[in-house]
Amino acid sequence: MAGGVEIERKFLVEELPGDLEWLDDRPLRQGYVALDGATEVRIRDDDGSWRLTVKHGGGVRRVEEEMGVEARSGEALWTLTEGRRIEKRRHRMPYGDAMLEVDVFEGELQGLVVAEVEFGDEATAAAFTPPAWFGPEVTDDPAYKNRALAVDGRPA
Amino acid sequence: MAGGVEIERKFLVEELPGDLEWLDDRPLRQGYVALDGATEVRIRDDDGSWRLTVKHGGGVRRVEEEMGVEARSGEALWTLTEGRRIEKRRHRMPYGDAMLEVDVFEGELQGLVVAEVEFGDEATAAAFTPPAWFGPEVTDDPAYKNRALAVDGRPA
Repeated sequence: MAGGVEIERKFLVEELPGDLEWLDDRPLRQGYVALDGATEVRIRDDDGSWRLTVKHGGGVRRVEEEMGVEARSGEALWTLTEGRRIEKRRHRMPYGDAMLEVDVFEGELQGLVVAEVEFGDEATAAAFTPPAWFGPEVTDDPAYKNRALAVDGRPA
Repeated sequence: MAGGVEIERKFLVEELPGDLEWLDDRPLRQGYVALDGATEVRIRDDDGSWRLTVKHGGGVRRVEEEMGVEARSGEALWTLTEGRRIEKRRHRMPYGDAMLEVDVFEGELQGLVVAEVEFGDEATAAAFTPPAWFGPEVTDDPAYKNRALAVDGRPA
C-alpha cells in the first residue's frame, strides 16, 4: 500500500482447494543481488516488469529505494542471484472486503503455499476470520520472510 | 570509452603545478552501497547526475549494469555508503592527442592527487611520455583502485 502503513497477515496453506475462482494470477520472481549487513539489493521480475530495490533496515537509519530496470538489465542482474531466489505464481481473489494473495512457490521452494491478506487498519486485521482452507498463521515467523526463504529455503 | 576496450594508465601527482590551464573541472563522488563477495553496488554523483552501478567481476561471469537514479534517491542511497566513499574534483586537460583527467581527492583522501590518461590502443599507451609533473605510475597497483581507496583509504 504505497505511502501508507501496511498491515498484513500471513498464513500457510496446506492444500489449495481446486474449485476456487481466481481474479488473476501471474508469475513473480525475485532474487538477492547483494546482501551486506543490514543492506539488501533485490531484483524482481513481476510478470515481465523488472524493479531493483535497495533496502536498509534496522537501527535508526531506514532506506528503501526502488527503481525500474529494463528487461535486458534485469535478466543480467538475475544471473547474480543464484541460490538466493524466490519463484512463485501469485493468485489473487477478493474475500469479503479484503484481497487474498496466494503465492504458490516454484523452483527450490516447490510445495510451499503462502496466503497473504492486507488490511487498512489494525482493527480490521484483528477481526479477520480466515477461510477454512487456511493453515497456521506465520505472520510473525521470521523464517517465512522473503529473504529467509530465498537464502535458507523452506522452513522445516 | 563506451563499447570499446579501455586502456588507461594511472600516475600519482606529488605537486600540481599552479599554472596549468584546465579545460574544466567538476565534483565527483562515489560510494559503495553494498559489497558482497565479487559483487559491488555503487552509487555515483557526477556533478548532480546520479547513477547506480551493479558490478560483478572475477571468474567466468562478468556483469556490469548501470542505471540512472533521481537525485532524491541518490542522496538516500548515499547515506548507506558512510566509510566507503571517494570524493574528488576531476580536472580535464588535453595533452597532445590524449586527454588527462586529474583527480584531486577531498574528504578522507585529501592530499591524494591521481592523473589518468586514456588511450585508444596499446601502442599509443606504451609510447606515452608523461609530463614532468607526473609522479610514479600506479596503473597496476591494486591499492589505487576505486574500491580499495574507498574501503581502505590512502595507501601508505
